[in-house]
Amino acid sequence: MICFAVPLAEKALIAEIRRMAMPSGQRGRAGVSVRTTRSATVVLTGIGDDCAVLRVPPGHQMLVTTDFTLEGIHFRRDWHPAEVVGHRCLARGLSDVAAMGGNPVAAFLSLALPRDLSQAWVRQFMHGLIGLAKQFGVTLAGGDTAESPNGVLADIIVVGTVPKGTAVLRLGASVGDRIFVSGQLGGSAAALSQMRKKPKTKLNVRHYPRHFLPRPRIELGRILRERRLTSAMIDTSDGLSTDLVHICEESGVGAEVEVGLVPRASVGKPTREVDLEFAIHGGEDYELLFTAPANRQIPSRIAGVPITQIGHITRRRKIFLIDRGGVHQELQPRGWEHFRH
Amino acid sequence: MICFAVPLAEKALIAEIRRMAMPSGQRGRAGVSVRTTRSATVVLTGIGDDCAVLRVPPGHQMLVTTDFTLEGIHFRRDWHPAEVVGHRCLARGLSDVAAMGGNPVAAFLSLALPRDLSQAWVRQFMHGLIGLAKQFGVTLAGGDTAESPNGVLADIIVVGTVPKGTAVLRLGASVGDRIFVSGQLGGSAAALSQMRKKPKTKLNVRHYPRHFLPRPRIELGRILRERRLTSAMIDTSDGLSTDLVHICEESGVGAEVEVGLVPRASVGKPTREVDLEFAIHGGEDYELLFTAPANRQIPSRIAGVPITQIGHITRRRKIFLIDRGGVHQELQPRGWEHFRH
Repeated sequence: MICFAVPLAEKALIAEIRRMAMPSGQRGRAGVSVRTTRSATVVLTGIGDDCAVLRVPPGHQMLVTTDFTLEGIHFRRDWHPAEVVGHRCLARGLSDVAAMGGNPVAAFLSLALPRDLSQAWVRQFMHGLIGLAKQFGVTLAGGDTAESPNGVLADIIVVGTVPKGTAVLRLGASVGDRIFVSGQLGGSAAALSQMRKKPKTKLNVRHYPRHFLPRPRIELGRILRERRLTSAMIDTSDGLSTDLVHICEESGVGAEVEVGLVPRASVGKPTREVDLEFAIHGGEDYELLFTAPANRQIPSRIAGVPITQIGHITRRRKIFLIDRGGVHQELQPRGWEHFRH
Repeated sequence: MICFAVPLAEKALIAEIRRMAMPSGQRGRAGVSVRTTRSATVVLTGIGDDCAVLRVPPGHQMLVTTDFTLEGIHFRRDWHPAEVVGHRCLARGLSDVAAMGGNPVAAFLSLALPRDLSQAWVRQFMHGLIGLAKQFGVTLAGGDTAESPNGVLADIIVVGTVPKGTAVLRLGASVGDRIFVSGQLGGSAAALSQMRKKPKTKLNVRHYPRHFLPRPRIELGRILRERRLTSAMIDTSDGLSTDLVHICEESGVGAEVEVGLVPRASVGKPTREVDLEFAIHGGEDYELLFTAPANRQIPSRIAGVPITQIGHITRRRKIFLIDRGGVHQELQPRGWEHFRH
């Protein structure tokens, strides 16, 4: 947990993180009960002990997910403002909880910092992370700090809850199920492409919101789970092509996707629709990709987010893209690559 | 969770990790219930979904801890065999659960690997980690993989359980309580010092067991909690001086430690007692440091581990070392430094 394997100057920083992490009105020392906005779930002991102690509400199960955010792989300090890096770091974990239909409860942050990093950068990073946490009633309940040999290294752990036996898994897709996706795809990859083309130009964060400040689809995931609308679900962190493969492999099925139906993001100013390539293979949009049994009515908008049918599940264990002319092409998942310098 | 933001060659590696992580006789795909040796606690869904799903036994609370293991900070590939790195990675997290008196249940591993790392190294690393996990009935239930920009980067998350309201915190030490430590101290720092002096010589792992293959004090922690013997507890990951400061700061008290009573490790071959300096300030021994109320009888050995009284808690919020001549010297916590190249 938070240990002091860092210069003593960092001790002040950890104390500050601890203060920032406390919900307003709870400026006590560790061990004081830290209530989240959902009264049923309580972080009993947060930052300041060997472990955090969490109470799980009766009749609920725990969800746990972990995700790296590594400088040079997932972000670049000259492309991404510190606050954006903190926001995206937590959004990755929250999105995994959304993909199970869960309620996020607590986050843990392992953070390794290079010696020459300014405290201002860290403060902005924490501001972005804790700002998003507070929006979802999530308590930063612990973590670890260390000196980094190279670049900023973060690992976010998000813990959530879900009523017993209701978590939406990847493995439930059946032949004949329809395939849906939330929001629009490719917006994040388009931003990345733009930054690669012009590495010295800073993009306007607001012109590429899905890349810089993705909002995890927690409410959508919860509604889909509560109404039992889905047979399988995943978030589009690796990109439609790769994430659909995950669902198909876990469920032992195949799929057909009509490329003309895939909703493409609009980015930039003036806005333009992103290339199909980005929508199919680009990762880090953090939308929800899910399948629904034929007898379930799926609204075209849930919790304010548009929902689009893009294909259906097939018996043959392959994935085909169908173009407007009806031509089938087998999909080769490319695996979402981050920066790869 | 396990995502494929790594070259597709790594996909085979993840599949292998998944196979290694399955308890014997459970070679199914994700979603199959994976039972731990403690039947009351079950990892319902492990590697292969967006989140792991865990069931918490009725009347229990959850413990969560995270710890980095970074190449160049916590280990060196030329000093530490891969299997040792994996063992120590998990031991750090298990030791935090021991310090709460908890039962470890599941582990999550975020692992970033440089492109040129051999698969043999990773396999040995996983072997060390999963070998230790199985000794304690802990299921590797998920994590993340990524390409590392520099060196091997690991973050271990350990989840444990503890009966409601019984977790042993750092903040319970009271004036008059006695201070105890398990095992011997300084063995890990002595190994490090030896390697720094002779960077090209490989130490024999068995001559420095507390450094290379520390056994977390899970059973001891559990017994101390069950018998309600302790008022506060921490593991000596940062070193006696720093960890005692943590207990005193959280509890709002001070302490006096008789340096002549601090149990020093014996290392090397032929064995020799480590310097007092290492026993007082050296970290990563993963012993338990705890306080006990005056009316509690503390056995001199618990679960096979020697227990030594080294001092007592005082009202004045300072920590003093008392030498054999009775001279008091105020302790200045140095903060355990790892390698710091």
